Amino acid sequence: MNAGGERAVAARLAQALLAPRAVALVGASGDPAKNTARPQRYLRQHRYAGRVVLINATRSELFGERAWPDVASAPDPIDHAFVMVPAADVEEVVAACAARGIPLITIYSDGFAESGPEGAKRQQRIVDIARAGGSRVIGPNSIGTIVPPRGVALTVNAVLDMPKITSGRLGLVSQSGSLIGAILSRGEARGIGFSALVSIGNEGDLSVGDVADMLVDDEHTDAILLFLETIREAPRLARACRRAAGAGKPVIAYVLGQSELGRELAATHTGALAGSAEAMAAWLDAQGVVRVDQFETLLEITPLLRQARPPGGHRVAVVTTTGGGAAMVVDRIGSDDVRVVGPPPEVVAQLAAQGIRIGAGPVTDLTLAGTRREVYAAVLDAYLASDHCDTVLAVAGSSAQFHPQHAVEPIVAADRRGKWLAAFAAPQADAALALFARAGVPAFRTPEACADALRALARWREPQDAALPTGDEIPAVASASALLARYEAGSCDEAQARSVFAALGLPQGDWRVVVDASDRDPLPVPAAVKVLSPDILHKSDVGCVRLDCVNEAQARSAFGEVLAAARRAMPESRIRGALVQRMETGLGEVILGFRHDPQTGPTIVVGAGGTLAEVYRDVVVRPAPVSPDEAARMVDAVRGLAPLRGFRGAAAGDLAALCRAVRRFSLLACVEGIRILEAEINPLLVRAAGAGVVALDGVLVTTEVVAA
Amino acid sequence: MNAGGERAVAARLAQALLAPRAVALVGASGDPAKNTARPQRYLRQHRYAGRVVLINATRSELFGERAWPDVASAPDPIDHAFVMVPAADVEEVVAACAARGIPLITIYSDGFAESGPEGAKRQQRIVDIARAGGSRVIGPNSIGTIVPPRGVALTVNAVLDMPKITSGRLGLVSQSGSLIGAILSRGEARGIGFSALVSIGNEGDLSVGDVADMLVDDEHTDAILLFLETIREAPRLARACRRAAGAGKPVIAYVLGQSELGRELAATHTGALAGSAEAMAAWLDAQGVVRVDQFETLLEITPLLRQARPPGGHRVAVVTTTGGGAAMVVDRIGSDDVRVVGPPPEVVAQLAAQGIRIGAGPVTDLTLAGTRREVYAAVLDAYLASDHCDTVLAVAGSSAQFHPQHAVEPIVAADRRGKWLAAFAAPQADAALALFARAGVPAFRTPEACADALRALARWREPQDAALPTGDEIPAVASASALLARYEAGSCDEAQARSVFAALGLPQGDWRVVVDASDRDPLPVPAAVKVLSPDILHKSDVGCVRLDCVNEAQARSAFGEVLAAARRAMPESRIRGALVQRMETGLGEVILGFRHDPQTGPTIVVGAGGTLAEVYRDVVVRPAPVSPDEAARMVDAVRGLAPLRGFRGAAAGDLAALCRAVRRFSLLACVEGIRILEAEINPLLVRAAGAGVVALDGVLVTTEVVAA
Repeated sequence: MNAGGERAVAARLAQALLAPRAVALVGASGDPAKNTARPQRYLRQHRYAGRVVLINATRSELFGERAWPDVASAPDPIDHAFVMVPAADVEEVVAACAARGIPLITIYSDGFAESGPEGAKRQQRIVDIARAGGSRVIGPNSIGTIVPPRGVALTVNAVLDMPKITSGRLGLVSQSGSLIGAILSRGEARGIGFSALVSIGNEGDLSVGDVADMLVDDEHTDAILLFLETIREAPRLARACRRAAGAGKPVIAYVLGQSELGRELAATHTGALAGSAEAMAAWLDAQGVVRVDQFETLLEITPLLRQARPPGGHRVAVVTTTGGGAAMVVDRIGSDDVRVVGPPPEVVAQLAAQGIRIGAGPVTDLTLAGTRREVYAAVLDAYLASDHCDTVLAVAGSSAQFHPQHAVEPIVAADRRGKWLAAFAAPQADAALALFARAGVPAFRTPEACADALRALARWREPQDAALPTGDEIPAVASASALLARYEAGSCDEAQARSVFAALGLPQGDWRVVVDASDRDPLPVPAAVKVLSPDILHKSDVGCVRLDCVNEAQARSAFGEVLAAARRAMPESRIRGALVQRMETGLGEVILGFRHDPQTGPTIVVGAGGTLAEVYRDVVVRPAPVSPDEAARMVDAVRGLAPLRGFRGAAAGDLAALCRAVRRFSLLACVEGIRILEAEINPLLVRAAGAGVVALDGVLVTTEVVAA
Repeated sequence: MNAGGERAVAARLAQALLAPRAVALVGASGDPAKNTARPQRYLRQHRYAGRVVLINATRSELFGERAWPDVASAPDPIDHAFVMVPAADVEEVVAACAARGIPLITIYSDGFAESGPEGAKRQQRIVDIARAGGSRVIGPNSIGTIVPPRGVALTVNAVLDMPKITSGRLGLVSQSGSLIGAILSRGEARGIGFSALVSIGNEGDLSVGDVADMLVDDEHTDAILLFLETIREAPRLARACRRAAGAGKPVIAYVLGQSELGRELAATHTGALAGSAEAMAAWLDAQGVVRVDQFETLLEITPLLRQARPPGGHRVAVVTTTGGGAAMVVDRIGSDDVRVVGPPPEVVAQLAAQGIRIGAGPVTDLTLAGTRREVYAAVLDAYLASDHCDTVLAVAGSSAQFHPQHAVEPIVAADRRGKWLAAFAAPQADAALALFARAGVPAFRTPEACADALRALARWREPQDAALPTGDEIPAVASASALLARYEAGSCDEAQARSVFAALGLPQGDWRVVVDASDRDPLPVPAAVKVLSPDILHKSDVGCVRLDCVNEAQARSAFGEVLAAARRAMPESRIRGALVQRMETGLGEVILGFRHDPQTGPTIVVGAGGTLAEVYRDVVVRPAPVSPDEAARMVDAVRGLAPLRGFRGAAAGDLAALCRAVRRFSLLACVEGIRILEAEINPLLVRAAGAGVVALDGVLVTTEVVAA
């Protein structure tokens, strides 16, 4: 298909989802107590203007409206079919929909990928049938779609019993079906409306990214909210995020599955693959997604759609009439990303000239005595006009409820001058929150959500460009790819792994392979002697490593010992000799890891060496490759490397060499012709500043050759 | 005063605070725009039935009511005087109140301890004057007191402009004045009422504990809420918490100052002493306080007052109609204290016999299909009746808003059988929350507050008895006390510190003091040689330590070197020779610390050795002394000690000896006649299982002798 044809198909699909002229309810029930009777009722209640085509195998009338016995006999046109029949009947219905050329089929029925491998096969079959006929599928296991501006209440979600739904400028895509109702109703209560809410279900065909992409082009949508349990189609979501940023539409995500149990639940709930929570978070950050940690922040942060770019800094100025109220927010930020800043002397002086005396401390507490419009407005204005901060947090105390003139109105009226402004009211203050909502000021009901939003803002960046190889990295990657092409797929032996790492420019120290006891070539001593086998990954555990061989004689005798130990412990393993490597000393150890994450793809991990990475989960994860700058930020973020940074007078390590190694290692993401599943250097020894780093071990696992 | 007399005084004070027959407003204003005009208006609006005595220096009438020129001329009786005059005039007013025998004086005026040392002196003076006359003081810097059952709206807090305040069963004591308004109004919106709300101000006289103690005896109060920034009078609060537990009234606390900046803010806000956040949290836990982390949890958890005892376990069963909604809660628990448990086979079978098929997974998701009263009620009932869990979390999905019959009503109607039951509704569901509130079911608006409450419940314990010395610990403590009595107050030298630690039963290895180069007695070798001086705490930093002296000759030469280094580096220091100690080896290092925390008193710290404790904040803090069981829990909670516990095949350390050392070290809290400000063993070397522990260093700092 040419580009014009693709655009036309995409436009037709978006129209079917967001502005359908007619929807079909396949399996609509005539029993008002049944869930499957709801969509008809909701579409009428919320004044859907298009046609509703009812399909019921046995009844020709449902609640006074005509029904058809099957999809084939229903009248044209149908843009969107909502399928509620039992799982066993879905295939037939989908085939009928596809045969009629219905562009979009949402499957509410469950019993597919989320129920196990058999269900996954059934799911794939119906998706294949649909696509063969030119139809696309949302679900299975989707609770439906709601498009408030057009009254499309095409869902079984019970919150649609609400008398009316308010249209707004937020589009939501959710992997949890019931949550579209929860979010809609919570927004409604706050005067926050939606342009669309889509339950994406199992993502058998259309994924979160596909729908987000439609919302980028939707004229009713200014910001895109994601409720995520996993990422199934990272490239499509990445593309949507980049296009959203280009269109000035922020993407905001709440992610389930931060805890181990949470991940397990997310996985069983919709049949998602379990991946690393840290990798997912880092990946979303890299796509320019605003990532929030608290549920309500997802809604409350949304007035940021008025300022669709990251603040470009993390300095927050705070003005308050309640010390305790402001402290509740500031205390819970708990992130190094946010710095709470007091006013500079010139701002203090400027306010003093207006008769307003404030301190230079990080929180400007006007106290009850300063709870007056002219004082609050002057301080707020001075901060919004000053360069010392990127964001201003305005807190209102007990006045917020019944005396909005003191603090709430100055906040609403403030000239933000392109700066970020967030508000928190300490008491119950529904009217104030509504005022803020109307004025587009992000306002928070709880101090924790407010702190969360400030964290999320500080973390927010533009979508990151892929840090592809440049200069001499290009031949380095080519040479690594060429080496890998010569190896069997699967586990490499350590010599192979080291060769690939060396090709990428990672220092390997002095080492050579000895294949035969009769080998009398010189050996690097003092030496570590390790069996060489692609099948023995944990060599120490089976006695296949000898350290500190002080001379060649000892090393040669160790050669025999480790081979014997390997044959004893793992007789089936392929033994290719031993790797003899010079013993090295340094100031500290680092773990470098690389993994093809099942959700987000190539991922690099930097952690403190020894058991620290595990005991303290002291690792930093990023999508790979990382730029040199990002590599430096990663190294900086590993807490256990503090001694290498000179903590408490320790001798500083060669951090420049370490950062370069991180960058080079991350280029494993760029090798061609083969997918690297996992790689690890554990440990990478860091020497004193200027003396470099050296790999003490190496693991590399690949899969079959991947088509270009 | 005898006990009967004390009780009478206490009763009179409690009556003055919670049921005053007459209140005086000293400094009441006739200008309705002024804050000081508010209390008169609020008392009338909220129908205070007692007399309001207005005192204004220049006006004889305020808003149609008679005013008196000063305290002396006002009519009897006055139970509670609320003082709003400028700081400079407070002393005179307090003297007049005391002279008249007014039992309670609340000072709203600021400019006292929170403003600096001069203010602290002024504060002490007015408290002295009040107490000399038999009066007690709340404040200064108190925004006032509200007693809803009696209409006592004795405050300038602007939320009192609310048309009416609902009485309830919660008593609040807050160190933040403006927060009493925030909490009152947020409770009002949820149908949660109060018996009393007291802004305690600077605690110049009456402290949080004193007011909490009155609430223990208050017939209108069933639970006591604390909004805390610091703890100024730990013993009095400890006593109140113990009495509250005895009376079956839970104490629930929200604590500001968890972050460094938060602590700083709390400190500047009311002039509180900065102490350790961890010590404060551990101290509150030990007093049997329910400690919550999120602001709204403070209110939402309160229906627990119906079940005034800790659940006695941490196993949570979860039933839900929304997988995503339940996962949001479970995912955010993030605590090892809580274990989410699935149903045992017999419960699964019992439900199957009723035709209800559930999985054995940790979260029982009934899905939309199971959103029916009979299903929800049966599962809930089976869990509440089963021994596999201590708490049941019941989650309602989209049905909660318009179809309470499906899930909300079964939760409300459930027979809890003494078990804990908590509810979370995923959508906006105000009516459901109100239903829960009326039924006394703790219900949560946000998944985070719900997770917080489950954490707080699991952490909640009965008040801990002081783990005083028993058996041979008694003479050990006596002997340590006797040694300390012979030392000068202040820093001990290492030999003195070691002698005290040895007296308590902490293994010190082989060591002796050499005072003179001519000393030819045998030395323990291989040796570490360290200068002995109470003035040189960081000996290594100034070159005053020589390690690995392999024989006596080397040790003797090191003796001269370290003394010379000390004289060079710190010529003013008292040098008492050198400490020669045998070099020791072991499996791991631990830091033991002891500190007299300015807020909570004796405190013990156990941490991982080396730089880990600092880099990872990997320390566990408890009030001292700790029981042997608590010592074991502390050791278990230090993550960096994983290798000593055998992590990844490491040889296990002598944890029994380590736990014993923790217990013994904590007995420093029990020495008599002197206060130990700080003590440290860094490191304590842990040898292999059975081989014990040994102190490698020792620091001890005391203050002047304390009167018994």
